Amino acid sequence: MLIILQSDVSESQVEHVLARVAELGFKAHLSRGTYRTIIGLIGDEQKISPEPLKAIPGVQDVVRVLPPYKLASREAHPQPSVVDVAGVKIGGGHLAMIAGPCAVEEPDRMDRIAEAVKAAGANIFRGGAYKPRTSPYAFQGLGEEGLKILREVGDKHGLPVVTEVMDPRCVPAVEKWADMIQIGARNMQNFVLLTEVGRTRKPVLLKRGMSATVEDLLMSAEYILSQGNSQVVLCERGVKGFDKVTRNLYDVASVAVVKGLSHLPIIVDPSHATGRPDLIPPCALAGVAVGADGVHIEVHDCPEVAKSDGPQALLPRQYAETVAQIRKLAELLGKSISTVSK
Amino acid sequence: MLIILQSDVSESQVEHVLARVAELGFKAHLSRGTYRTIIGLIGDEQKISPEPLKAIPGVQDVVRVLPPYKLASREAHPQPSVVDVAGVKIGGGHLAMIAGPCAVEEPDRMDRIAEAVKAAGANIFRGGAYKPRTSPYAFQGLGEEGLKILREVGDKHGLPVVTEVMDPRCVPAVEKWADMIQIGARNMQNFVLLTEVGRTRKPVLLKRGMSATVEDLLMSAEYILSQGNSQVVLCERGVKGFDKVTRNLYDVASVAVVKGLSHLPIIVDPSHATGRPDLIPPCALAGVAVGADGVHIEVHDCPEVAKSDGPQALLPRQYAETVAQIRKLAELLGKSISTVSK
Amino acid sequence: MLIILQSDVSESQVEHVLARVAELGFKAHLSRGTYRTIIGLIGDEQKISPEPLKAIPGVQDVVRVLPPYKLASREAHPQPSVVDVAGVKIGGGHLAMIAGPCAVEEPDRMDRIAEAVKAAGANIFRGGAYKPRTSPYAFQGLGEEGLKILREVGDKHGLPVVTEVMDPRCVPAVEKWADMIQIGARNMQNFVLLTEVGRTRKPVLLKRGMSATVEDLLMSAEYILSQGNSQVVLCERGVKGFDKVTRNLYDVASVAVVKGLSHLPIIVDPSHATGRPDLIPPCALAGVAVGADGVHIEVHDCPEVAKSDGPQALLPRQYAETVAQIRKLAELLGKSISTVSK
Amino acid sequence: MLIILQSDVSESQVEHVLARVAELGFKAHLSRGTYRTIIGLIGDEQKISPEPLKAIPGVQDVVRVLPPYKLASREAHPQPSVVDVAGVKIGGGHLAMIAGPCAVEEPDRMDRIAEAVKAAGANIFRGGAYKPRTSPYAFQGLGEEGLKILREVGDKHGLPVVTEVMDPRCVPAVEKWADMIQIGARNMQNFVLLTEVGRTRKPVLLKRGMSATVEDLLMSAEYILSQGNSQVVLCERGVKGFDKVTRNLYDVASVAVVKGLSHLPIIVDPSHATGRPDLIPPCALAGVAVGADGVHIEVHDCPEVAKSDGPQALLPRQYAETVAQIRKLAELLGKSISTVSK
Repeated sequence: MLIILQSDVSESQVEHVLARVAELGFKAHLSRGTYRTIIGLIGDEQKISPEPLKAIPGVQDVVRVLPPYKLASREAHPQPSVVDVAGVKIGGGHLAMIAGPCAVEEPDRMDRIAEAVKAAGANIFRGGAYKPRTSPYAFQGLGEEGLKILREVGDKHGLPVVTEVMDPRCVPAVEKWADMIQIGARNMQNFVLLTEVGRTRKPVLLKRGMSATVEDLLMSAEYILSQGNSQVVLCERGVKGFDKVTRNLYDVASVAVVKGLSHLPIIVDPSHATGRPDLIPPCALAGVAVGADGVHIEVHDCPEVAKSDGPQALLPRQYAETVAQIRKLAELLGKSISTVSK
Repeated sequence: MLIILQSDVSESQVEHVLARVAELGFKAHLSRGTYRTIIGLIGDEQKISPEPLKAIPGVQDVVRVLPPYKLASREAHPQPSVVDVAGVKIGGGHLAMIAGPCAVEEPDRMDRIAEAVKAAGANIFRGGAYKPRTSPYAFQGLGEEGLKILREVGDKHGLPVVTEVMDPRCVPAVEKWADMIQIGARNMQNFVLLTEVGRTRKPVLLKRGMSATVEDLLMSAEYILSQGNSQVVLCERGVKGFDKVTRNLYDVASVAVVKGLSHLPIIVDPSHATGRPDLIPPCALAGVAVGADGVHIEVHDCPEVAKSDGPQALLPRQYAETVAQIRKLAELLGKSISTVSK
Repeated sequence: MLIILQSDVSESQVEHVLARVAELGFKAHLSRGTYRTIIGLIGDEQKISPEPLKAIPGVQDVVRVLPPYKLASREAHPQPSVVDVAGVKIGGGHLAMIAGPCAVEEPDRMDRIAEAVKAAGANIFRGGAYKPRTSPYAFQGLGEEGLKILREVGDKHGLPVVTEVMDPRCVPAVEKWADMIQIGARNMQNFVLLTEVGRTRKPVLLKRGMSATVEDLLMSAEYILSQGNSQVVLCERGVKGFDKVTRNLYDVASVAVVKGLSHLPIIVDPSHATGRPDLIPPCALAGVAVGADGVHIEVHDCPEVAKSDGPQALLPRQYAETVAQIRKLAELLGKSISTVSK
Repeated sequence: MLIILQSDVSESQVEHVLARVAELGFKAHLSRGTYRTIIGLIGDEQKISPEPLKAIPGVQDVVRVLPPYKLASREAHPQPSVVDVAGVKIGGGHLAMIAGPCAVEEPDRMDRIAEAVKAAGANIFRGGAYKPRTSPYAFQGLGEEGLKILREVGDKHGLPVVTEVMDPRCVPAVEKWADMIQIGARNMQNFVLLTEVGRTRKPVLLKRGMSATVEDLLMSAEYILSQGNSQVVLCERGVKGFDKVTRNLYDVASVAVVKGLSHLPIIVDPSHATGRPDLIPPCALAGVAVGADGVHIEVHDCPEVAKSDGPQALLPRQYAETVAQIRKLAELLGKSISTVSK
């Protein structure tokens, strides 16, 4: 960590900073330039936060040299991690194809959709039993009843299932019924929830928050990892943008950024990133081309009656065409869509 | 609600849309223009969501005409609401002056800070016992012990206290010890938590999320209001911006926007909005000038040893000068800083 | 165009709006809903701007139904346009591979770089003779001397050349020496410059502004097209974002959005979008995967001595590997990299 | 400037960096930490750009210590600059009240508006003769004829006039007819135009670009200052935001940031920042409260027939009320609205 002092810093202020650095257990390396004096901290930078140092009089800025996350970093684990979701591998050349409706709906419809996405090449089935809805008056999900439907339908079609948890009190139920636990974008910095899923041993699908930096995302992963759960898959699903022509701004470069910084698998969700069915297929391909370890797409057989987010769902037929294209691109890149081993 | 059809919509698609509208219990008003056909829905628009309608083939766009919130709207309550926090009024010309350290620290320090901010003119004391920290390795707050310290110090100095809750399981404890419950920016769309605090009858300080629109903020307030808790105070604390010269982008105009749409009081938090002590005093004045019902400022007597967010805290002396300026501006605007009545 | 009236609009206000609509030469279609009254305008919507209508008392909002551009729209030209840059086709399955240094430098270096990118598969050579630099103290380009160097080097290697123009007074010189004229991101809404290049008959490479919406971009293209120059190629090069981990936020979905709205070719520029050489190859692939008609990449044989933007340049060897990957992906998509016919 | 090397930098890379630093005429100060090696550059940092240094193999990051602007910095000119616009002072406690229609319209209307804003307390009259319009089909301004109308009306009412220039070829005409030259937001990084107005000796009103950082704004001012024109007034007019409830995001804190970094006066433009007449008065007050040296407001006596931007104009009566409030606030802050001395 580097402490950059103000140009008019006094000698007593410099000494005060040096004293604070020593109190924190670091050695200081003082460097006086023509215009500025810099103090380099020698010691384990990840043990301290730059904020209090910035508050010392005479300090202009504090620059981190190391990332603030450890377990999520590539240094900690140079090889790409491969996460196993009930037999489906994600990462290291194995692509996850997660598909299903936004919300869990009635069993018959779930059955039809699961059958269709399985046939199209999906390897994990999704559906929300607890739905984060902007409006308190909107459909909030079927709750534990929905979890059971999801489980049954997944089992029938031989597909592991992933579903979102919003309430720390519901983690045991989701852990019981699902193969993978999703943390939604709005809860990416719900540290209570991250800690709770970190205590389970179920794989976690951690979606990037709408205004989260890549570092924020990796720090949230670090919360889960630091509880002992190493099965984390990240998901880029669009950030807040100024152009309302798409629902969010699909930050495809973040996938390549994550690949450089971390060993964790990362998939893309073009459904939420764009909010438009016409953009999902090309954006899914872009995600795989940039290096994503999988694609998450909402599929519904009748979007106009979907209980949630209908307009961003693909029809099963459209999904099948998209997976066919992804499969060819994956081959070109030396990757493959994981098959369900169970 | 208006359904705008695509230019090449077929007659059978138009009929299908009309049938769906009728199924949903609305009357349709068909208007065929030279270039476009529009269907106006006649009925209670707030009962439906535009999303499923957008998924109907042939539909180009669905435009809302009414806001999606009811209880938070000015129509529902034309006069400004006045929220009472243990005798301190917020709204309707009464300004809240909320001050205190970021995190609850040891009792002696809390006592000194409370004494100083009370003398400066603060009317509500703040401090976090549960801290949302980006890093799992950072100080996470003193927990319920912190709540008790806050309560005791507040009582000693005759100041109501506000503190953040992050975990729905902690709501009863916070409700017991605090006079006002804060929902932090990262939890603005934690709908589980909003529902839980909505079930209490304690005033709630709801901070705007970093990428939340004003409508999102009012929808989150609606979650609380719809549970029967009408004591909601909003707080603008900066949104995500592209210029890192400030921590966030202080959206002062949003205060005036909220005043036009809602009856709920709204205060500003220049500490989190800017993250820089030099900017807090002028930005506090800007907030009051634009019409805010109070100001939330972090104050610490030794920012460089603060357990959280030191660099954005004012010293007690700086806070006193700021309140003195705010008081003069308030008088000019015909408002006043609420006094603690108890 | 739809005029949505305020809920409390008076009868005389409605009549005033109807009178204004008639004055503007439109027929009005009045629709009174339970909660709102809407006026639909029947006539050529593209002839008027919604702004003055919004200023009429009693009007809440004015909603456009048609896009504000005509010549750039897919309706005006249903087939994709193919732009010809001195024999190199862009669009309709033909990919442009534009490469070269940020700024035109000394002839020897230009010669070496041109030879290398040609061998790698580039079909258009780039280099700036007039450089938009944030600092007045930075290298501003070689001016007309640079144009001549670019021309000679391009001719020697059989590569058409593209270069940026910043000053309307320099358009004749650029038109004389270059095969394609670039409008940089900072000048995307320099309407004087757009008009001036619209008067030439040279192909124009129009880069998207850092905070321009897709509609803004198409409106800027419309400026050029409306002057009679139909040879416009758009370029996505990243928009302003909040995460400084990349220089800009690469909005790859905008390529697919443009494809739906317009017939104009659109290429991607991962160099400026990311500002990081490690991200350029995967982001170039993502751009082609999403449907771009070409890729613009900065290449320099010694980035550390580049006169401008060194850190975002690929080395010739890295560029060759990237083109090889793009070529395979293009084949998969049924496209091909254009060859220089001259 | 600090060069932070990668953790796995080789000894030969370190030597290469040191050699490059020496070639550039700087002394290097090498500091080897436990985890990282840092090189501090000793010499005049403002003479070099960090970009080429970032391209050297083994370099992780280059951190500036000094700002890249000189003439605009507070160090260069510790006292606030006072700009004189034909007798009206801006800065140093003197507030500019710039008002008038968006575009110059017919003489009679201009005369009525000028009379009204003068009576209300405006001290500079504005109107655009050259209009930057998103659409090529929209009204583009009256051109030089408009400049003459503006001049005559200003003279009649004893008000200096400010008007925008978009084309470097029109600078002489604008210089001839106007007292202050405006550079609009879309041209903030039109470096050709900045250089051209820098060569005049007329005061310049430089509006912040929609996605410009404060540093970008100061660098653009530096372009003008470096040409010898020291009469620059900055203007905050809103940046691009994600919430479409306002036209732009009014970044009021940037005014206070500029005050800390630069001696140049800065005013606010709540008309363009919000785009909504109901928000202009409170946002004007917020601007003055935060420390702005003036307020720019569009005023029109019949917004619904305005040739440009009608909906964001105040009526003369509303403007008079706003100025009355600003005057009281200015007194409270020890400032005053400048009077026209001629």
